[in-house]
Amino acid sequence: MIDPRILSGFRDYLPEAMMPREQLIETARRVYRSYGFAPIDTPALEYREILLGKGSEETDRQLYLFEDHGGRQVGMRFDLTVPLARFVAQHIHSLGQPFKRYHVGVVWRGERAQRGRYREFMQCDFDTIGTTSVAADIETALVINDLFEAIGFDRFQIHLNNRQLLNGLLEKLDMADQAVVVLRALDKLAKIGRDRVAEEMTATSGASVEQVRRVLEFAEVSGENDDALSKLEPIVAGSEVGQVGLARLTEILAGLKAAGVPQRRVKLDVSIARGLDYYTGAIFETFLDEMPEIGSVCSGGRYDDLANLFTKQQLPGVGASLGLDRLLAAMEALGKIEPVRTPADVLIPYFDAQRLNEYLALAAQLRAAGLGVEVYPDPKKLGQQLKYASERGFRAAVIAGEDEFSGQRVQVKDLAKRTTSDISVAAGVDELVAALQAVVR
Amino acid sequence: MIDPRILSGFRDYLPEAMMPREQLIETARRVYRSYGFAPIDTPALEYREILLGKGSEETDRQLYLFEDHGGRQVGMRFDLTVPLARFVAQHIHSLGQPFKRYHVGVVWRGERAQRGRYREFMQCDFDTIGTTSVAADIETALVINDLFEAIGFDRFQIHLNNRQLLNGLLEKLDMADQAVVVLRALDKLAKIGRDRVAEEMTATSGASVEQVRRVLEFAEVSGENDDALSKLEPIVAGSEVGQVGLARLTEILAGLKAAGVPQRRVKLDVSIARGLDYYTGAIFETFLDEMPEIGSVCSGGRYDDLANLFTKQQLPGVGASLGLDRLLAAMEALGKIEPVRTPADVLIPYFDAQRLNEYLALAAQLRAAGLGVEVYPDPKKLGQQLKYASERGFRAAVIAGEDEFSGQRVQVKDLAKRTTSDISVAAGVDELVAALQAVVR
Repeated sequence: MIDPRILSGFRDYLPEAMMPREQLIETARRVYRSYGFAPIDTPALEYREILLGKGSEETDRQLYLFEDHGGRQVGMRFDLTVPLARFVAQHIHSLGQPFKRYHVGVVWRGERAQRGRYREFMQCDFDTIGTTSVAADIETALVINDLFEAIGFDRFQIHLNNRQLLNGLLEKLDMADQAVVVLRALDKLAKIGRDRVAEEMTATSGASVEQVRRVLEFAEVSGENDDALSKLEPIVAGSEVGQVGLARLTEILAGLKAAGVPQRRVKLDVSIARGLDYYTGAIFETFLDEMPEIGSVCSGGRYDDLANLFTKQQLPGVGASLGLDRLLAAMEALGKIEPVRTPADVLIPYFDAQRLNEYLALAAQLRAAGLGVEVYPDPKKLGQQLKYASERGFRAAVIAGEDEFSGQRVQVKDLAKRTTSDISVAAGVDELVAALQAVVR
Repeated sequence: MIDPRILSGFRDYLPEAMMPREQLIETARRVYRSYGFAPIDTPALEYREILLGKGSEETDRQLYLFEDHGGRQVGMRFDLTVPLARFVAQHIHSLGQPFKRYHVGVVWRGERAQRGRYREFMQCDFDTIGTTSVAADIETALVINDLFEAIGFDRFQIHLNNRQLLNGLLEKLDMADQAVVVLRALDKLAKIGRDRVAEEMTATSGASVEQVRRVLEFAEVSGENDDALSKLEPIVAGSEVGQVGLARLTEILAGLKAAGVPQRRVKLDVSIARGLDYYTGAIFETFLDEMPEIGSVCSGGRYDDLANLFTKQQLPGVGASLGLDRLLAAMEALGKIEPVRTPADVLIPYFDAQRLNEYLALAAQLRAAGLGVEVYPDPKKLGQQLKYASERGFRAAVIAGEDEFSGQRVQVKDLAKRTTSDISVAAGVDELVAALQAVVR
C-alpha cells in the first residue's frame, strides 16, 4: 500500500477551493477578451537555455531543471513572461502587430517551502506587444478596472507611476547610471524610512547630500493627482525623458477619466517601483481598499523591448498580471467566497427506487431550461439525501415519490430557508422551473 | 542571441488554435457542472512512487522523472486517473460520497515524437466515485450526449458494452482466468479479422476450437439494440455475472431513452474493450458519424476499485474522458472551427489622432452593452487598420473622424459583407449597439 501524499509546497484543490478559482479565471478571461486580448498557451517545459538567466538569480536557483529522455537539458517554466518573449520572437511574423494576448497558466518555482508560498501556482497575464502608444497604457489600467469590477470589487485603487520620471530626475542630477541602486533603495522607503534609505543611497550610489535630498523630495511627492502632477513639473523640468514621462502620466489619467473610471480608483504614486530594470515606462499596481496590507493584486507596466535575448526586432509592450492566489486569499478573508462544494443548484433525491428513469427524465428537462441538476445515484433514505444536499451547498431539492408522481405534483424544498412548496407538473415543467429559479437566485 | 525554439513533441498554441480549444473546454465544464460534477486540481508533480507502475509499462518508460531541489524523486503526471486515485484516497473523508468531479489538466508523456502524437496534452475527465448504482452509468452516457450536443454535433453515436458479459461467458467456458489474453486478441478483431484472432486466442489462451467459436460468436453479436440484447441472452444464460451485465446494459438503454437521448445515438457494441483490465462494468466509446475513422472521441467506463494501491477503502466509480485534441482535429477537418484570431467582434480604428479619449469612451460604452471591442492603439492610416481588422477576423468596425464626431454619427462597417451604414449616436449608443449586434450575430 502506497501512502497517498503530495509534495511539500504543492496543493490539491478540492471543489470548495477550485470553484472560486475557476470562476475568477473565467471572469479574467471574459474581461481580457472584451478588449480583444486573445488566449495563447506555451509548453510547461522549455530548453534550459531559454529559461536560465532571464529572471533573477533567485528564480534561476528555483528552476526545476533536468535532462529529458532525449538527453536535452530542460526546465519547467517559472513565469509566463519568458515564454511570452520566446513565443513572440518565434512567431511574430505570423502573429502580426499589435499583438494582444492573455495567458493563464501554471508556473513552478522550487522555493523554500513556507506559509503562503507555493512551488506551483497559476499566473494570469495580459499584454499588448508592438506599440508604444499611450492608448495601450490607458487600456491596461482600464482592463484592471473592469476586471476588479467584474470580480465584484468596488473599492480598489490603481496606483500609477512612470519610470521615466525618476530617469529624468537622475539624468538632471548626473546619476543616470545609478538608476538600479537608487531604485533598490527607494523600494524600501515605506519599510525602513527616509533616513535609512538616504544612508543606503549614499553608500551604494555615492550620491551627495544634495542629490539624495532631491531624489527623496521626488519619491515623497504625494497628494491629489492634479496636485502631485504640479509638484512633479519642476522636478522633471529640463529633462526631456522626465517631461515625456509626466506627459504620459497626464494622458493616462485623462484617458481613464474619459472612459468612465471613477477618479477615486486612480492614484498617481511615484513610490511604486516594480521590477528594478524590467519596466521602462508606465507602472501599475492595484490595492484593495479593504485589505491594502496584502499588497498589489494586479501589477504591470510598460517595457521597451520584450524579446531582446531572442530577436533583434524591437518589441515594445505593456501589460499586467493578476495575482490570483493573493486575491483569492483576500476574497476569502473578506467573506466574498461562498463555501459551496457543488456547481449545481438543484438536487433530485432518488426517493422511489422504482422510478429512476422518471428522475432522470425530470432532470433532463430542468437542465434543458438552464438549471444545474444532480440526481442522487442511490435510493437511500430521504433524510440522508437531504443532509448530503445541505452539506454540499445545493440550494433546492425536488422531491417526488409515488404520491407525487400519481398526482403529477412535486415538492420544492428551499434548503436555506427550510421552506417547502408544492408545484404541479401536470402541464409541463415551466412552473417548476420558475419556482426553482426563484430559489436559486 | 538565443534561438527561440520549443522542444520536439511540444506545441505553442497561437490564438487561432487556442480560442476553439478554450471554447471546447468551457463547454465541457459547463456540461459537467450542469450534472453536479465539481472541479478539482492536483499538482503537475507527484512523488515517483505514486506514478510508477500505475499505468502500463509503456507509460512508465514515458514518465518525466527527476530529482527535485530537496533530493526527492518526483515525476510529472502522465494522466489524471492516477492523481484522482491518490487524491480520493487522501481526501475521501472530507469529500464524502458520492463524489463527482471533473478535472481539466495538462499531462506529460515522453513518447517518441511522431505526427499527431505530443508529449504534452490536455485531459478533460469526469467521474462519479462511491456508488455502484446504474444511475451513475446512465448519467455518464447522458453527459457524453449533452456534451457533444453542446459542442455542436448532432450525428454521433455512443457505443455501450459491459465487461461482465464477456466475464460471464468466459466463466461458462471455464476460461475466467484467460480474460486478459482473450480481450487482447478480441481487441484486434476489426483490424486483423476473425481467423487471425482465433489463431492468436488458441495460441495465448490454449482455448479449444469450440471455446474460440463461442467467444467469437459473442464478439460478433450485432444488430439493432433490442435484437442484440436478445442474441446475448442465451450466450450469458446460466452465468450470474453475465446476466447482471446484460441487465445493467438493458437498464442503461432504458434510462437513456427515458432521458430523451435519440435512439440513433446509442449502440450496444460488444466489440469495444477499452483498457484490458481497468474497467469492470459498463464501457463507453463515442464516434462521430462524419468521421468514425479517427476513433473514439470520448471514452470511459465503470471500475470496481479506484484507489486500491493507496487505500483499503473500496471506491467504485464510473467516468469518461473527452479526447480534446482528437476532437479539435476532427472539428477542424469538418469545417466546424472558424479561422478567427481575435475574441472581440468590433474594432474601433484610431482614426482621428486628436480623439483617442473619445474612442476609449465609446469603446467603454459598447463593452458595457456586452460587446467585445478593441481600440486600435496607433493612429495609422485607416486602410491599414481595416486590413488588420479583416485579417484578424473582426466582424465590424466603427469609424468616426472629425466629421462624424461633429455630426454625432458613426459609420458601422460589416467587414464580411463589406457594407457600411450610418448610425446616429446623438441620443446615446443604443442604436449603435443594435446595429453592431445585428452584424456580429
